[in-house]
Amino acid sequence: MSGRFISLEGGEGAGKSTQAKRLAAALGARGIDALVTREPGGSEGAEAIRGLLMQGDVSRWSAHSEALLFAAARADHVEKTIRPALGAGRWVICDRFLDSSRAYQGVAGGIDDAAVLALHGFGSRGMLPDRTLVLELSPEQGSARAALRDGDASDRFAARGPAFHADVAAAFQRFAASEPERFRLIDAAGGIDEVAAAVLAAVADLLP
Amino acid sequence: MSGRFISLEGGEGAGKSTQAKRLAAALGARGIDALVTREPGGSEGAEAIRGLLMQGDVSRWSAHSEALLFAAARADHVEKTIRPALGAGRWVICDRFLDSSRAYQGVAGGIDDAAVLALHGFGSRGMLPDRTLVLELSPEQGSARAALRDGDASDRFAARGPAFHADVAAAFQRFAASEPERFRLIDAAGGIDEVAAAVLAAVADLLP
Ligand SMILES: Nc1ncnc2c1ncn2[C@@H]1O[C@H](COP(=O)(O)OP(=O)(O)OP(=O)(O)O)[C@@H](O)[C@H]1O
Ligand SMILES: Nc1ncnc2c1ncn2[C@@H]1O[C@H](COP(=O)(O)OP(=O)(O)OP(=O)(O)O)[C@@H](O)[C@H]1O
Ligand SMILES: [Mg+2]
Ligand SMILES: [Mg+2]
Repeated sequence: MSGRFISLEGGEGAGKSTQAKRLAAALGARGIDALVTREPGGSEGAEAIRGLLMQGDVSRWSAHSEALLFAAARADHVEKTIRPALGAGRWVICDRFLDSSRAYQGVAGGIDDAAVLALHGFGSRGMLPDRTLVLELSPEQGSARAALRDGDASDRFAARGPAFHADVAAAFQRFAASEPERFRLIDAAGGIDEVAAAVLAAVADLLP
Repeated sequence: MSGRFISLEGGEGAGKSTQAKRLAAALGARGIDALVTREPGGSEGAEAIRGLLMQGDVSRWSAHSEALLFAAARADHVEKTIRPALGAGRWVICDRFLDSSRAYQGVAGGIDDAAVLALHGFGSRGMLPDRTLVLELSPEQGSARAALRDGDASDRFAARGPAFHADVAAAFQRFAASEPERFRLIDAAGGIDEVAAAVLAAVADLLP
């Protein structure tokens, strides 16, 4: 039997990486093998493209080049990592996926949603998650959490203004409204255990 | 006044790089400043993408990822190098451009010509050369020339079979037939001076 494909979306510091691991552990406790992966990256080629995307000046890439690079990385990730894992019956939990491109390239780059979806159709045959969980947290709380954490916070995508974060949050809400079957909005302001319970509840209908 | 944009296409070892330099010298002798550039590459970002495309195993990238990477590199090259040079009144002579993607990704990857053109429309607003010169040479002669030459012959795109090279040559001929204003086919079997004269004649109508 084919596994399920879950993506986690939301702003910086919302808890995506934390909840991806927690969900995998909760599934493991139920005897379900889950692979945690992330974007951009998640395969050898896509991680190499990630290096190009995350390094350098904010204006290193035009919005259009950036959208093409994300689509190329995603195509490699889907082909080399996600489809094989699902085919082997594993669940795949992906820390950011297509909807981050729709939100970030759409908002920051002014790229039409239809164009981002067309690139995804070309590169990845339009593959969609079975469920997409949007972790909703105010940008202030997200920045505070990210500042407390070690890691790759100082990349090309951090350090945008508050209006930008509000636009990204609104974009995720629009996507969720237009595909209610695929999306669930999760209040991410609570403690880690509380959010983990909400995440698990939001995929309960997909469990075997 | 805006400069002219010339691309050189053809199989491996046909003499594209040699003739690009010769054409720039011939234009320079007429008081026309010409920039020689190449693909994949030609700008800082595109050269970084070139590194990803040229290294590694032949099967490192799927045809679709590869097409997206070429489109991303071309978008950066057009935006950062080609349009600024043309805007400054320089001619641009580009060693391979869009039609190499159409020929190679089309033939080797089985990607629809319409899809390659759509990616170019998205990334580079469909920018086309004013003139595209296809240097025609048998694959045997091209390989013999390339073998004599130093340089980057041992990349992911060298070492394909004869049927492949014939398909690429046929693809260039189809493109030329469908856009006779833009394309000129050049017999590249002669000596360097002889081919250079044919190249210059093929852009004579564009000279000021
Ligand atoms: N519910 C929570 N309450 C308090 N702190 C949390 C919560 N969830 C995560 N954190 C902490 O906040 C920080 C950011 O979390 P995490 O790295 O999971 O966010 P993220 O959404 O993956 O961020 P980024 O977009 O930067 O990758 C981490 O230090 C994490 O331990
Ligand atoms: N007309 C010619 N007659 C003989 N040798 C030539 C001619 N044109 C080029 N050469 C030589 O053939 C070799 C290949 O030429 P060149 O590098 O210009 O080809 P190319 O089309 O750019 O090849 P590649 O596709 O591998 O980049 C070089 O050593 C060059 O000096
Ligand atoms: Mg994270
Ligand atoms: Mg060359």
